[in-house]
Order: sequence, then structure tokens, then C-alpha cells
Amino acid sequence: MIVVLKHGVSAEKVSQLIAWLEALGLRIHISNGEFQTVLGLVGDTSSVDIDLVESLEMVDSVKRVTEPFKMCNRKFHPESMVVEVGDVKIGAGNFVMIAGPCSVESEEQIVTVAKAVKAAGASLMRGGAFKPRTSPYDFAGLKAEGLELLKIARQETGLPIVTELMNINDLPLFEDVDVIQIGARNMQNFDLLRELGHVNKPVLLKRGLANTLKELLMSAEYIMASGNERVMLCERGIRTFSDYTRNTLDLSAVPMLHELTHLPIIVDPSHATGIARLVPPMALAATAGGADGLIIEVHNDPIHALCDGAQSLRPEEFAELAKKVFAVREVVQ
Amino acid sequence: MIVVLKHGVSAEKVSQLIAWLEALGLRIHISNGEFQTVLGLVGDTSSVDIDLVESLEMVDSVKRVTEPFKMCNRKFHPESMVVEVGDVKIGAGNFVMIAGPCSVESEEQIVTVAKAVKAAGASLMRGGAFKPRTSPYDFAGLKAEGLELLKIARQETGLPIVTELMNINDLPLFEDVDVIQIGARNMQNFDLLRELGHVNKPVLLKRGLANTLKELLMSAEYIMASGNERVMLCERGIRTFSDYTRNTLDLSAVPMLHELTHLPIIVDPSHATGIARLVPPMALAATAGGADGLIIEVHNDPIHALCDGAQSLRPEEFAELAKKVFAVREVVQ
Amino acid sequence: MIVVLKHGVSAEKVSQLIAWLEALGLRIHISNGEFQTVLGLVGDTSSVDIDLVESLEMVDSVKRVTEPFKMCNRKFHPESMVVEVGDVKIGAGNFVMIAGPCSVESEEQIVTVAKAVKAAGASLMRGGAFKPRTSPYDFAGLKAEGLELLKIARQETGLPIVTELMNINDLPLFEDVDVIQIGARNMQNFDLLRELGHVNKPVLLKRGLANTLKELLMSAEYIMASGNERVMLCERGIRTFSDYTRNTLDLSAVPMLHELTHLPIIVDPSHATGIARLVPPMALAATAGGADGLIIEVHNDPIHALCDGAQSLRPEEFAELAKKVFAVREVVQ
Amino acid sequence: MIVVLKHGVSAEKVSQLIAWLEALGLRIHISNGEFQTVLGLVGDTSSVDIDLVESLEMVDSVKRVTEPFKMCNRKFHPESMVVEVGDVKIGAGNFVMIAGPCSVESEEQIVTVAKAVKAAGASLMRGGAFKPRTSPYDFAGLKAEGLELLKIARQETGLPIVTELMNINDLPLFEDVDVIQIGARNMQNFDLLRELGHVNKPVLLKRGLANTLKELLMSAEYIMASGNERVMLCERGIRTFSDYTRNTLDLSAVPMLHELTHLPIIVDPSHATGIARLVPPMALAATAGGADGLIIEVHNDPIHALCDGAQSLRPEEFAELAKKVFAVREVVQ
Repeated sequence: MIVVLKHGVSAEKVSQLIAWLEALGLRIHISNGEFQTVLGLVGDTSSVDIDLVESLEMVDSVKRVTEPFKMCNRKFHPESMVVEVGDVKIGAGNFVMIAGPCSVESEEQIVTVAKAVKAAGASLMRGGAFKPRTSPYDFAGLKAEGLELLKIARQETGLPIVTELMNINDLPLFEDVDVIQIGARNMQNFDLLRELGHVNKPVLLKRGLANTLKELLMSAEYIMASGNERVMLCERGIRTFSDYTRNTLDLSAVPMLHELTHLPIIVDPSHATGIARLVPPMALAATAGGADGLIIEVHNDPIHALCDGAQSLRPEEFAELAKKVFAVREVVQ
Repeated sequence: MIVVLKHGVSAEKVSQLIAWLEALGLRIHISNGEFQTVLGLVGDTSSVDIDLVESLEMVDSVKRVTEPFKMCNRKFHPESMVVEVGDVKIGAGNFVMIAGPCSVESEEQIVTVAKAVKAAGASLMRGGAFKPRTSPYDFAGLKAEGLELLKIARQETGLPIVTELMNINDLPLFEDVDVIQIGARNMQNFDLLRELGHVNKPVLLKRGLANTLKELLMSAEYIMASGNERVMLCERGIRTFSDYTRNTLDLSAVPMLHELTHLPIIVDPSHATGIARLVPPMALAATAGGADGLIIEVHNDPIHALCDGAQSLRPEEFAELAKKVFAVREVVQ
Repeated sequence: MIVVLKHGVSAEKVSQLIAWLEALGLRIHISNGEFQTVLGLVGDTSSVDIDLVESLEMVDSVKRVTEPFKMCNRKFHPESMVVEVGDVKIGAGNFVMIAGPCSVESEEQIVTVAKAVKAAGASLMRGGAFKPRTSPYDFAGLKAEGLELLKIARQETGLPIVTELMNINDLPLFEDVDVIQIGARNMQNFDLLRELGHVNKPVLLKRGLANTLKELLMSAEYIMASGNERVMLCERGIRTFSDYTRNTLDLSAVPMLHELTHLPIIVDPSHATGIARLVPPMALAATAGGADGLIIEVHNDPIHALCDGAQSLRPEEFAELAKKVFAVREVVQ
Repeated sequence: MIVVLKHGVSAEKVSQLIAWLEALGLRIHISNGEFQTVLGLVGDTSSVDIDLVESLEMVDSVKRVTEPFKMCNRKFHPESMVVEVGDVKIGAGNFVMIAGPCSVESEEQIVTVAKAVKAAGASLMRGGAFKPRTSPYDFAGLKAEGLELLKIARQETGLPIVTELMNINDLPLFEDVDVIQIGARNMQNFDLLRELGHVNKPVLLKRGLANTLKELLMSAEYIMASGNERVMLCERGIRTFSDYTRNTLDLSAVPMLHELTHLPIIVDPSHATGIARLVPPMALAATAGGADGLIIEVHNDPIHALCDGAQSLRPEEFAELAKKVFAVREVVQ
């Protein structure tokens, strides 16, 4: 950690600060500039409250040299992690397509969609049983029943299940689920993250709407530090001033996360854009940009032709997209 | 709800859409412009999925005319709500100062601070027992023990307690707390919000880092629709590109929220800025801008003189600020 | 334009408003909802000040139905525009690579780089002679001399020149330039835009750091409405809370702009990320996402091996990238 | 400047970097941490390209210790600057109200409004003659004629004129203006800023929509370094995800700018919110937060009663607000 002092701080105050820092078990290197003095803190600085130090009258600014995340840090784990879900491998060169409806609605729906996406090349199936909704008046999912329908679809297709958990108390219901998804709004639900450390299955952790990459990694660290290292990260759009799409897909996060961590990086173009016709170009872009996989909403509604344009792709659109995705993957690998 | 169709949509497609909307129990007014057709949907549109309609090929854009929040909507509740905490009244002209340390650390600390802030004019005391921390390696609060220490401080001073709940399962521990605070990261923890509907005490709901005013109101609606109408809202800074302060205090949210809702609006300048020396000017600004109250971090640490500049004010700084706050309040009321 | 009135507005006030709007030459359709009244304004609403109407006491909200941009609007120009620069075609299926150094530094430098990028497949050359710099103390470019060096490089390679204009008064110096670039900071320098309407050469208009797509299109409209229709748009990153990259590349703007306008869309991954090693993945992503071209910084500095990692790619890195870009282009076209 | 190296960089590469930095005239202090090496650069680092150093393969991050702004830096100018406009003093305890219409429309209008705001306590008058407009089809101001009308109003009231300059070439027309305003969109029009260094009158420099405080100060530095030290800064709202107001007024910028610079800080609540009824609470908040002055839009339109709610206050609303502003100023001073 580096502490830059303000101009003109008295020698006595500097000594006081150094004594305090040394009492925390740190060694201090002093560097006197033309205009300002800089302290280099050597030792385990993880217990130092950076905000507190920064707020001291005499301090101009503070910079942490080593990131506070360890278990998900590529510096300490240079080889990319492979997450295995049944026979499916994700990461370190293994690319995965995850697809399915936003919400599980009926057995027929989920089975039909699962078969279609499998035929098109998906190797995992998604489907929401517990749905976070901004409004208390909106449909919140089929819950336990939805999970049962997902299992039926898995039996019919062999596709492992990815589905969202919102509440610690629902965890027992998820015993037979293959991958637990944590949604953007729960990325910093720390008690929930800690609980997932005791679960023996992979976690797909979505980036919050306004969270930095460092915060995303710290949330992964919560799960890993509690005992479960099988974490995949998911970029799904951030909130910016730009209002033509629901969120702004931050694709440069993909190569940047690859530098920072060895965990697999998945991209969700459906939630990022909120507009079905933008999903194919953004899915292709994410693939070209180095994502380890995509999670895409596919919906099948033969009765209401009006749903054509919803956020979800129709199975045939997904099949067409999947072909191009695999072709782009060939080229950039 | 208003649905603007794209230029050149066929009459047949328009009829199909109208039939579908009418099947949802709505009446449709058609308005033909020079260049575009607009449908006005009359009736209960709360069940219409605005994103779905917007995504239809033939639709240019959709606008909801009536907000989807009812219970916290000033349109239906023109008189400002007064929330009562013991003898303390908040809202509708009643101004409140809430103060105390970020974390409860010891009996001596919390009692000392509570006495000091009471003497300075605070009528509620804050103090964290369960602390959300970005890093799994950071101090997460004294938990149940912290709650006990808060009760001791209440006994000594008579100040009601405001403290944060993070986990549904901790709710039984909060039975004797006066006001439950929901932090920014849990603003959209919908199961937690719903549970608070069954609690017979006021809730202080903080705005999330990247949440719109409408989303904040929808979260209040969750609590109210589940049975608990005693909700106070708290502006505590949003995340923007600006990096000189921890967050950007969005003070114009205060008068805007007063227009939209009848609930009391509290401002937290401590978390918004993250810098102690910016707290007094922002506390005064919030008061002048019409806030119904302030929640301010005050910390007492006579041993470590180094903490002078932390995010928290010292008791004597708070006392000085409180005097000015009450004077500004006199002027703008 | 649609005007949604507040609940409970008196009939008299509504009549007053309608009279005022009719005086502006508009016809008004009235639609009475269960709860609110909506006015549909038919006719030429381009002269109506939307902010003024929205601010009226009785008005809840206003929505413009037809976008205020005409000349760059795909609704009126369904076929994609092809911009020609010498023999080079851009847009409507014609893909272009623009490459070169950030600043022109010397004849040797610009000629060397121009030859290298041409060999790798670039068909236009970029190079800054007039440089916008945040600090008054930074190098601001070789100016007129830089333009001369660009012309020498063009003579040596045949590559047309793309270079930035910052000041109306420098326009005479740009007579022999092939494409004038307008930088992000000047996207709303309206007098400059208007002047470009009288210039007989293509303009590459970069999106401002915090500008919406609509504002970008309105700036293109300035140039086109003044007489010059050969405008290309450039996405180069927006400013968000995310701080790992210099800006956040908003790639979903590419397919969205393709919907809104018939103008070619170029992407600049160099300025968007500010980090050389992120340029290749983002260049590939932009290509896969449907961009009509890329503008990439390439720098050649054999002496200072330390510059390896700068924002600019080295010629050999660019050559490797270009191959992949063309391969991705093959796949997604 | 501090340069943090990556873990495991070879001693040879470190020596190379140090040699390169020493060649720039700097002395280097080396600090070896448990895990990383940190270089402290001592000397004049203003010529070091921070982005270049940061982009080097071996570098983890870089931190500038001394800000690159000098002339507007409070570190070197601890006493607050007083800007004088005729008899009016601004800054260092001198508070100013600037008021007037958005655009000058007619002699009657500007004279009437000027008289009204003077009576209410304004000591400078604002009024736009050259108007930046997002759309090329919108009214762009009365230009030279507008400036003449402002001079008439000055003659009638004695109030000095504040008005916006957009184009270097219009500068001769502004000779008799008292304060030149530079709008948000031109905050980084560097040629224009440099030109203002040669002008012998105060400049009111507005913060750009997406500009950091440091960028605002660097723009002030442009003017000051070119010879004109009479600069006032203006916070007028930044662009964020929040969409209830036109912009988000960043009031904590006021005390933060007071720390960073000795220049006066003005706040514009009219443009920040875009909604007349939010102007009074935000004007009071800005005053309580320590602004040196306010610039407020006041419009007088007795004919069209419909304009009641526009962004501008009516003279009587302004008069009522001004009283409260002066009362708040009394309290917080």
C-alpha cells in the first residue's frame, strides 16, 4: 500500500502516522519527493482500512498495490480454470452455449425449448423458477413446481440445468440443480454468497448493474473463501446514461476479467440489451471478444405470433445464431 | 398505456395487435398521425408486459401513463405521511436527526456516542451490528452482541435504535429494534422486502447505488403491499463517472420524491460522500433542499487521534453541524 | 407528439392548452383514460418545445413520436449509404480498416507506419496533426507540418488520409485531406458542424463521451442539413462508472445505429479501451457485431522498446489482428 | 509519480525502465514490497505520459502524486480568489445572484426581466444571444442583435452582462460584454479556451456533462496559463443513469472544488434539473452547500400563461426564492 502525504505535513505528524502503521505490523519505506512525501507500506496490508487512512487530514491519497482478492486472482492461479458440469467443460478453451426461456411456464414449453436448443448446439439449459421482479404485482415464477419441470426437461434431453436462487431458505429445493445462478441484484447479498461456499455445485455469478470488476471479483472471493471454488462470472450489462438499450453491455470486461482472474467468463446478451434483434450481433461480438460461453433466452410460443419480437429468440433464430457463433469461435480461438 | 406504432404497419397487423390487447380486457383508442399511428390503452394495464409490447416488430415505443406504484404514490395519498418512532415524528414538517457510529464496537463507545448525539439534538441513534462488506476478509460487525449494546445505549439515553438487517433469518433478533434499515445493496432483495411487510415497525429503505427513483418506489411498494405502510426512503448517493467522492449525492431526488410519494425522505451525507469534511456542507444542503431528516455517522475515538479525518464526524463536529442544520431548517421550512 | 395530462386537470385548463397547441397549427386528438387524459398532436410538431410542454403544471409527460432527425433517418432512407473515399467504398456491405499513429511525429514514422498498415490490409490511414489535449502543457501536434507529412505518406502508399479538425479557422489547411475527423469533444461544436456542411469531403463524426445516440444523429443532421451528406459515425467509448478501461465501449450502439440510420458505422477500439492489449478482442467483437469499419492506432517505435505496451498496436500486431478481423467479417457478413 | 510494477518482473527490465525514466531527468526511489516493487519518481514529472507508462507490460499501475494543474491549484494559491465585475465582488465570502432569461427575445423582455431580478437582489444579469441547440432546426438565438439588447438592459439597470460565447470568430462582438460564459459543450474546446487567455474580462466556465473535476480544472488552467486568471467555475449537472431530472446536480463538487482550487464556484440549478419547480430547493441546497453564487433562469411572459411551469422561474418566484437564499446564506456563512 502506498500513502501519499499532503504538502507541508509536520515531521511530528508523519512520525505519529508511521508509529501507528508500524503498530499494525507493517514496515514503512519513506520516499521524499520535490513536493510530497510518499510512504510505502510493506507487509500484510489486508487489515488496513484504506478509507480510514485516505480520510486522514495529512493524507493526499492512498493506493493499494496488491488487490484484496486472492482465490480468484490470476496472479496466484495463472492457469485458466475449467468448470465441469456433468460432461460439459467450461473455460480454458472450452466454449459453452446455455439457452432456454426466461421463465419456466409449463412442461410442454420447457421440454420443447430444451429439445430445440439442444439440437442447435446448446449444452446447458437455463430457465427461471424463482424470478426477481421490480414490481410486487408481477409474476414471480412457478417456484418449486418450476424446478420440477426443469428436471423433466433434463430427463428428456440430458441437458444440465442452470437456474436462479434468490433466497438462502430455498437452497434445499436446489439440491438437484446442476448450476446455481446468482442474479445481478444479489451479487452483493453477502450472506447468500457465503452460503454458496458450502454447496457442492458450480455457481454462475452475474455482475451487478453498477458494480466494478473488482467488486464482482470480491463477490466471487466470498464464495471461494467459504469453500466452493467452482465459480463462473457473467457480464450482463451495466447501467449508464445510454437509454437505447436496457443496459450497456460492457464487452471489454471480458478480456479484462481474463487478465484479472482464471475463472470462466460468460456473457448474457439477452438481459444486456433487452431487445431480441440486438441479441445475435451482441452474441457474436461476445464470442469474438473471447467469452467462454453465452447464456441466451430462447422462447417458443407458437400460439401468440405477436411475441415474435420479445427479448427472447425463437428456436429457429437461436439455431441460426448458434451456427454463426460456432463459426466465429473457430476463427478467433 | 400508449403504444406508438411504426410507420407503414399493415392494417391487418394493427387489427391483430388490437385484438390481442382487447383480449387482455383493455379498450383501445386509435389516433392516426401524419406519419404514425398511436394506440391509447384504457383500463387496467398493470398486467401488460411493457417490455414485450415494446419489443414487437411493429411497435416503435411504449409509454406507461400511470405509474405502477399505488400504495406509495402521492397521487392517491396527497397528504404527507408521518412516521412515528416512539415519541419521535418524522415527515410532514417533522424533521429528524439520526446519528451514531458506523459499527457498534463496544458498550463504552456506543453509550458515549449516543449521549453525545442526543445532547446535540439527535432524536434517533444509528449503529451497525450486521455490516455488509465488499470483502469476505473484512470485519462484519458484532452481530447479536452489537444489538444488545445498542439496547443498553437506548436505555441510557432514551434514543430509539435504527440498525441494518441483511438476512431474513436474523429477523427474530431484531424484535426489540425500533427502526429496521435496509441497505443499498439489499434494496432489491425482494424476499427480504416482502418479509418486512409482516413486521410491525418502521423501515428505513436506502436507495441502491444504481437504482432509479421509480425502482426505489417499487421496492417501498413491496413492503407496503405486504402490510407495512411505515416506510421511509433514504437517498445516499448514486454511482456515476465522478470519482472525487465515493458516490454522487443526488439531492434533486429529494424534491422529486416529495412530488412522487407521500413517504418521508431522509438523506445520508456520510455514505454519499465517504469524506468527513464534505458531510457538513452536504448535510446543510440536504436540509435546505427539503429533506425530512438526516442520518449521519458520528464516531468517538479519544485514543486514536489518527481517526480525526475518517468518514465519521467527531461528536463536537456533529454538535456544531446540528446547530447550523436546525438554523437552516428554520429558514427554509 | 403525445401529451399525457395529470389526473384531475380542470376542463378549462385542458381547453386552454388545446387552444395554444392549435394556434401552433396542430390538430389534437383527445383520449380519455380511466385515470388520465392523453392528447395526440397531429401535424408538424418540430417547432414545439418539448421541454416547455413537459414543464407545464398540468402535464405529466410528453413523448415525441417522430424523431427530430430526418436526413440521417433510415425511416426516410431505407437503403444503407455508401461513402466513397477515392476508390474505397464504406458501408452497405463494404468494410474498411483505417489505421495509423495517434500523432504524426516525423516523415519516417508516418511513412513507415502507412506502408505497414497498407500491407496488412488497411485502406485508409489515420494520423493526428492537430491534437486535443486535456492539459495545456501537453504536446498538441505538429499542426500544418503534420498535414504535410501525411500527404507525403499518401503519395508513398496511395492511402487516403483521415485526420482531425478542431477549429473552423484551420479548415483551409484541410483542403487536400480526404476525410475530416471530428473528435468526441467537438461532437456538439455546432458552428463547426454547420461549417462542414459546406465542405465537399466525407466527415467521420465521433460520438461524444456522454452523448446519446439521438444526440449523435442530431449532430450528423447538422452537417447534412447544411449540405454535406457524406457522414460516417464512430463509436469510441462512453463514460461510465466502470474504471478498468478508459471508457466503456458501447458495442450495442452498432446494431442500434444501423436501425436508426443509413450512415456507415465505424468503431474505434483504441480510444475506447485505452489499453493496447484490449484492442484486438474489441476490434474482433466490433467486426462480429456488424461495424462497417474499424479505426485503429498503430505505432512504430523500434528504438524505445519500452513503448511495447502503449495504447497503439505495433505493425506486426496489427497485421495479425487484421487477418482475424477479415476472417470474422467473412463469417458474419 | 508512483509506478507500481507487476509481480515477477525481471531485474533487467526494471533497470531498463529506470534508465529510461532517468533519461527524462527524474530521480527514482525504489521500494521493494513483499510482493511488488514500487518506483517513486522525483522531479518534474509533468512531461511523463502517464498513460504510456501505465500501458507497459511490466507496470501494474501508476499514480500521479502532484496534480497537473498549477495556476488554479489551491495548494499554490491558498487564499480564495475574488473576481470583480464592475463593483460586484465574487468569491472569498462574496456571494452573487446571476439571473435572467435563457434567451434574449426582445428589448421589452430583457429590460423587464433585468429590472425584476435586480429588484429581487440579483447583481448580474444573464441572457443568451448565441444559443447551442442539439437540433439544427431549433432557434439559435438573436446573435449580435441579442447582445445589443443586453446592453440596453444594462444601461437601464446597471447590471453587468453574463452571456455565452460559442465561436472564436464571434469574439469581437463580445468586447463590451462583462463576463463571458463558456457552456458545458465547449468546456474542452481547447482553442477557444486558449483564446480566452488573451481577453481582459472574467470567464464563467461551465463543467461539461461528463467531465471530472480534474478535467474542469485543466480547462480553467488553459485559460489561466494563456494569461487570464479571472476564471469562475460552474457546476450545472452531470449525466448519469438517473432520468427523473435532465441532469444530476453534483453538489458535493462545490466543497470539493473549494478544496482543490481558489477560484469561485457558481451553481446553475436551472440547467441541472431542467424543471422549474426543482430550482428553488436546489438553489437553497447549493447555497447551504457553500456555493459562491447562483445563476438562475428567470423568464417573464405575461401573455402566455401556459409557460407558468417552464424551466424558468417567473420574476415573483425568483424574488421569493432570493429572500430565502440570502437567509440561508446568513446562516451558513
